[in-house]
Amino acid sequence: MAAYIIANGAAAYDHEVTIFHTFWGLNALRKDQQVPVKKGFLEKMFGKMMPRGADKMGISKMNFAGMGPKMIKHVINKHNAMTLPQLIDMAQELDVNLVACTMTMDLLGLQQEELLEEIEYAGVAAYLGEAENGNVNLFI
Amino acid sequence: MAAYIIANGAAAYDHEVTIFHTFWGLNALRKDQQVPVKKGFLEKMFGKMMPRGADKMGISKMNFAGMGPKMIKHVINKHNAMTLPQLIDMAQELDVNLVACTMTMDLLGLQQEELLEEIEYAGVAAYLGEAENGNVNLFI
Amino acid sequence: MAAYIIANGAAAYDHEVTIFHTFWGLNALRKDQQVPVKKGFLEKMFGKMMPRGADKMGISKMNFAGMGPKMIKHVINKHNAMTLPQLIDMAQELDVNLVACTMTMDLLGLQQEELLEEIEYAGVAAYLGEAENGNVNLFI
Repeated sequence: MAAYIIANGAAAYDHEVTIFHTFWGLNALRKDQQVPVKKGFLEKMFGKMMPRGADKMGISKMNFAGMGPKMIKHVINKHNAMTLPQLIDMAQELDVNLVACTMTMDLLGLQQEELLEEIEYAGVAAYLGEAENGNVNLFI
Repeated sequence: MAAYIIANGAAAYDHEVTIFHTFWGLNALRKDQQVPVKKGFLEKMFGKMMPRGADKMGISKMNFAGMGPKMIKHVINKHNAMTLPQLIDMAQELDVNLVACTMTMDLLGLQQEELLEEIEYAGVAAYLGEAENGNVNLFI
Repeated sequence: MAAYIIANGAAAYDHEVTIFHTFWGLNALRKDQQVPVKKGFLEKMFGKMMPRGADKMGISKMNFAGMGPKMIKHVINKHNAMTLPQLIDMAQELDVNLVACTMTMDLLGLQQEELLEEIEYAGVAAYLGEAENGNVNLFI
């Protein structure tokens, strides 16, 4: 959420923004329905165990014995703040570049059909190229 | 602690430093006594469940089954290193700008009376402005 | 792993790269055998409780009830991707500067004999000096 809030803030002020999603960050880009694709056993396991889509992801670092994510979503709604899926929609409307790390996708057995539409695909070299030209560069 | 150690190091060498506190980072800025303010039910719950002040915060990422924070505080004292509350005091003496993220404060129901004195209050746009002009910019 | 993958990527494209290891990041630099050194009680406890060397470190943020690190290592091998110890070897071959934070070493009671060969030792001021001159600077 921090990544998307900062990204949307910057994009709203006409900055060019790219979010590079790697490891568990990829889960934010998964479609929330299961997509039938061929996978090996371990890839299937990962696919099952990882949250499918932004709506199912936990809130990092503080869990309140499992109550955390639900409570926060509740509070977010109450304050008319945006949920993670809404933040991602907004990022796409603001033309934030959402990039999925192809190396981690291979590793976790995620395929392009399983991720949201209008995502870009790139590796570490492409990330570094963008990071060098950027003004502000965060690992979140 | 990493944030404050780096910030104090930089401030000691005459750099201008700002720490922008968001989500759980706000807990470092809470006064350690309870402050009577009006709150809704969920805001009260958050207020109770979150650590009140820097002295009660855990050490991230390695917990040793709960022993971690105590052990580390013990070792820190033994080596005459600084604890988090001392690091925050020092940051204030070194004129590090401590900024609380107003959006997260709303969300978690934290009010200005509950946070330390001499804190600034700002949003994501202000953070981005500072980040762009800065030399070194970390998400911790 | 993310730190080493990004560092090796950048070093392979002829960038000068430094990884500054602090707190639990120091564990990646520990030799995997026990090294006999004199320590106080708490330092011994830390030494025992922290993972000794990169091969024994967990994978951050997602644990699958303990299954995570093993499964990921399995998947990494299957895809011929590199494990953390291999990534560190590669970083040393690519002349990435591996720096251990001396302040945290003191705190955790780690001594130079316990860490890998050809490591540099420095403090926060040295890190800040490098960070200011660098193009891309991440806290991972």
